[in-house]
Amino acid sequence: MTTPRILTEFRDLIVSGLEGALAGTSLLHPVLRYHVGLEDETGARRENLGKLLRPSLVLFTATELGADPRRALPAAVGIELIHNFSLIHDDIQDGDRLRRGRPTVWSLHGIAQGINAGDLMAAIAIREALSAGPQITAALVSATIEMIEGQGLDLSFETREATVDEYMEMIDKKTGALIRGSFTLGGLVAGAEAETLRRLSELGTALGRAFQIRDDILGIWGNGEVTGKPLGSDIRRRKKSLPVVVGLSRAGGADRTILVETYQKEGLTDADVTAVVTVLERLGAKEIAERMVKEHLGRAEEILAALPFPHKEKMTELIDYLARREK
Amino acid sequence: MTTPRILTEFRDLIVSGLEGALAGTSLLHPVLRYHVGLEDETGARRENLGKLLRPSLVLFTATELGADPRRALPAAVGIELIHNFSLIHDDIQDGDRLRRGRPTVWSLHGIAQGINAGDLMAAIAIREALSAGPQITAALVSATIEMIEGQGLDLSFETREATVDEYMEMIDKKTGALIRGSFTLGGLVAGAEAETLRRLSELGTALGRAFQIRDDILGIWGNGEVTGKPLGSDIRRRKKSLPVVVGLSRAGGADRTILVETYQKEGLTDADVTAVVTVLERLGAKEIAERMVKEHLGRAEEILAALPFPHKEKMTELIDYLARREK
Repeated sequence: MTTPRILTEFRDLIVSGLEGALAGTSLLHPVLRYHVGLEDETGARRENLGKLLRPSLVLFTATELGADPRRALPAAVGIELIHNFSLIHDDIQDGDRLRRGRPTVWSLHGIAQGINAGDLMAAIAIREALSAGPQITAALVSATIEMIEGQGLDLSFETREATVDEYMEMIDKKTGALIRGSFTLGGLVAGAEAETLRRLSELGTALGRAFQIRDDILGIWGNGEVTGKPLGSDIRRRKKSLPVVVGLSRAGGADRTILVETYQKEGLTDADVTAVVTVLERLGAKEIAERMVKEHLGRAEEILAALPFPHKEKMTELIDYLARREK
Repeated sequence: MTTPRILTEFRDLIVSGLEGALAGTSLLHPVLRYHVGLEDETGARRENLGKLLRPSLVLFTATELGADPRRALPAAVGIELIHNFSLIHDDIQDGDRLRRGRPTVWSLHGIAQGINAGDLMAAIAIREALSAGPQITAALVSATIEMIEGQGLDLSFETREATVDEYMEMIDKKTGALIRGSFTLGGLVAGAEAETLRRLSELGTALGRAFQIRDDILGIWGNGEVTGKPLGSDIRRRKKSLPVVVGLSRAGGADRTILVETYQKEGLTDADVTAVVTVLERLGAKEIAERMVKEHLGRAEEILAALPFPHKEKMTELIDYLARREK
């Protein structure tokens, strides 16, 4: 599967932007460079970065609308750092010891210093955005607030059953806020008019939904060797991801008992995980989730058609990639 | 002991500013209002706020330099919210279940949601500062970064012995950054010239040191009924606060063994705490810490004399209060 051009064309620029933003000699700076994947645990240069989806979207959007990508770089770096601050804290909240196959920050430095490293990443993100002006900063802060509220909702689902609608509201905030924010920041840098900004925001919502639901599918049915996470990991962590929410909304009798009782247990066995996966498959939860991914990607294509982008085929390439990605 | 006017004159204005900034209907908003002391656990209006030292310093400085306090309010509220975000995360990092005699956020809502609540508080702080413009926001973000770096240093002292100089560097960042930031923000709102801003920053450093060292003294020798914390609480938590750092730098033989070995134990008994306090007193650590408080407050008085403040006596009143405060 070829990586879409949107994710490759701006990569070097983004990496240099991240290096600049995270240069610093405090005790915590190497921890931040390790987390984003610029360095290994010893502080040696070793590139191991993620997809850089969000900053790539900022730069693609800005250039499609006529701006110089370098002018959009602080916004792109800012949103990538906000994303990474949320990942550092997420890993603590979820108790995850591995991310992209490497030990997480808290598992290396403890929870207290992990919280602190995330805090620093967020503050540096804002400093970076400020260099692009107050309007960009305000848009980034709004997206951040929405993302945190979404994370709050997600955590609340651990202790109560969420409906599919509540789940969609949660991912529109938790994941959608930064994807929408990426398009919006790109548009703002390029001075886009209100109508274009509105369409960009809608495109972000559709892509964010597709992206998160695909993530939820991979969190249960993904290939562990590709994702870097153990198979069925979201079930083991008793995450109420979309397939589980769908399953719970459809399950009755014995199926319901299996789902509810397993999700109340501490320390699930392999057999528990398999039992839940089997029930979800029987209820059609995987197919429903896959259909939802397709539906939102279709919606993204429709919105894309109305956007004044000269290279729409590049966005289509990304949409196809998101539909099929295995990690 | 009368509360100094600086801490009373602006209080209503600050409380109304906090209410405005923390108005919101997300799941997390009541948690933030509870934390700052605007509401109780049930969401009922109940004022239980702290000293509001930092925002009071912003407003006092701005008005002394000729600005309308209402113009300085977003900066004042911003810095108070940054302070409170750090307290929410501090309580998790230190495992503290009580603050000002009330259950801490994480002890009510769990560590995961506690991290999230702190994150939201920080983002709202920046949004608030943005309404006062990019220069104010940049100053607040710089102070925040320095504070977080200081917190990182402080956490690193848990696993290694710090010198008195390293300790001073740590508190100049961890506590000093926001006190300095308060004076600086007040100065910036009032359009103060560079020389005044430099003096304000020095005043902040001196007051920050005195404030933190006084806090450290209270953390060991404070009256629990006044501070809301158990007696000797910093020793029980094995905090390497200034008296302990001073003690370690002076202790030899049996005294050193008691300090080092007790600080390596898990779950200290009352007898352990008493033994450490006795050693610290024998080594003169309390007197040295008290002398340092006096010295930095004296330095603050000197700097104050050179500042163009019409009501210096109000700052002197605050300095006297900080020298003697019991909580």
